[in-house]
Amino acid sequence: MNTLFEEYLKGISWEKEPLNLYRPVAYALESGGKRLRSSLLLMASDVFGGMPKTCLDAATAIELFHNFTLLHDDILDDSPTRRGKPSVKAKWNAGTALLSGDAMLIKAYQYLHKVPEEKLSDILGIFSKTALEVCEGQQYDLDFEDRSVVTLEEYYTMIRLKTAVLIACSLKIGACLGNAHVSDANMLYDYGIALGMAFQLQDDYLDLYGDFETFGKPIGMDILSRKKSFLNLRAYEMASPEVKQQLDDLFANKALAPDEKINQARTIYSALHMEEVCQNEIQRFMDQALKCLSQIHENAKSLQPFKDLVVSMNHRQK
Amino acid sequence: MNTLFEEYLKGISWEKEPLNLYRPVAYALESGGKRLRSSLLLMASDVFGGMPKTCLDAATAIELFHNFTLLHDDILDDSPTRRGKPSVKAKWNAGTALLSGDAMLIKAYQYLHKVPEEKLSDILGIFSKTALEVCEGQQYDLDFEDRSVVTLEEYYTMIRLKTAVLIACSLKIGACLGNAHVSDANMLYDYGIALGMAFQLQDDYLDLYGDFETFGKPIGMDILSRKKSFLNLRAYEMASPEVKQQLDDLFANKALAPDEKINQARTIYSALHMEEVCQNEIQRFMDQALKCLSQIHENAKSLQPFKDLVVSMNHRQK
Repeated sequence: MNTLFEEYLKGISWEKEPLNLYRPVAYALESGGKRLRSSLLLMASDVFGGMPKTCLDAATAIELFHNFTLLHDDILDDSPTRRGKPSVKAKWNAGTALLSGDAMLIKAYQYLHKVPEEKLSDILGIFSKTALEVCEGQQYDLDFEDRSVVTLEEYYTMIRLKTAVLIACSLKIGACLGNAHVSDANMLYDYGIALGMAFQLQDDYLDLYGDFETFGKPIGMDILSRKKSFLNLRAYEMASPEVKQQLDDLFANKALAPDEKINQARTIYSALHMEEVCQNEIQRFMDQALKCLSQIHENAKSLQPFKDLVVSMNHRQK
Repeated sequence: MNTLFEEYLKGISWEKEPLNLYRPVAYALESGGKRLRSSLLLMASDVFGGMPKTCLDAATAIELFHNFTLLHDDILDDSPTRRGKPSVKAKWNAGTALLSGDAMLIKAYQYLHKVPEEKLSDILGIFSKTALEVCEGQQYDLDFEDRSVVTLEEYYTMIRLKTAVLIACSLKIGACLGNAHVSDANMLYDYGIALGMAFQLQDDYLDLYGDFETFGKPIGMDILSRKKSFLNLRAYEMASPEVKQQLDDLFANKALAPDEKINQARTIYSALHMEEVCQNEIQRFMDQALKCLSQIHENAKSLQPFKDLVVSMNHRQK
């Protein structure tokens, strides 16, 4: 199924004028990534008996949209790399990342427009709603950087919008293209939200407890940038006033070597059992995801890939 | 007709979370501008007997899209002002202009989605095609800055994409909503292209020959930034090798006071009769526009507003 989609994606030519607008699009799409969202869309259609072929344009739209958000995020975060390669912003410049990103968002709508006409309005509705929510999530993320206090509830709202809704939207569009009953499509959407939350928390977890080689990103970046991730926010919630002060001092200490800072954070988090706390929270979202699946009216066998995905999430190291 | 639309636009509340995402949208829309594109959309529908009420959402989409391009253009051009007020980039920051711009593009699609369902696919098609062309035009504009030679033909391609197609698209969507015959809608589109070209050339003209008070922008900015505008490109085409050298020397001269540089450019352009050359070219596009109108099957009276628009373009001072 994925091979078919990869072939389809590869078959789209971006070698057209103006080259400075379209070459970065090709570069971003070639850089790959997990293709998680498009795979979920194809899987969702398949589960309800849809044909992969009818999903290729919508899956392309989702990949284009996801990569549009990455191009613009890399401008906002001033990120030099993406997926181990120079970001579009770094390889070209911020202006190119801005404009090529805009073009990708519009191309996403063009590919979405190719879905069967009787489904266009529904699919357009869920897509635009989701796209706007992703912008809202990104804005909350930026807002949180400037705030001293962010609650875990606010953090959950942010990651739901920034990460989970697009995963859920991909599943719902796939279900719609597979002619699922609307209540099943909605249940798969809810499954996607829970899966997306677990996915983001696992990302937060791997930032500190992952392995550089397999995770593919430097470890402890959230500590060094004092990012208000799950680990940070929950640690502050659980810490005594003394330990809070220790964390404040640690994060404010600019003299400390990066490795030492990360090690000291790990020690404080260990005393608070943060590894276990985080894994329990991921498990809670995975249980939610499985519960959603159990309420879908398809036969149990065909939902197996979605169950497997929940289990594999637990073992995800990258 | 315009009052109805202004009221509709004013009635949309942007006072929602996250405020940093939506307040810049309200600010950009409140700043007004000529509302040229939305007015054309409403006029086009009216000419073919459509109801203004059925056009309000599509007109809103066009205004949102146009303002999205302005927010992102102001990032690319590092512009501190827009319509005599601080640009979103200057009032907030580049990140806000980027993300609020993205949200405006998505909101444009949401408003477009509200058109009568039987027309959704056609209108979506013309809108996305146009939106992508506007990005292409913007990219060409950026590319031209880094090139030493740009032909007038290339410049025309650029301004057609950057400016004319959105004007033409607004007219075509209006015609479609007014149930125009497809050949009439296409002819009105062609009228819009010619009108848009004349509009842009008049902008180039007013940059040097306009009046600061009425034009609302400082005069001679294209000279100071050595912008490859119609005046610049055509002057180089017409100049003798000696005069070309004079222009090169003038543009390269960094010691000259801005006013003096503008005056000397004006003197060289005068000797080349650039005022007249530019006005003749504007007239050529206006004649094209009128010719398109003459091929529309509506009765002559109802097309009068479009004829008046061509005439008023000739007297436009801002």
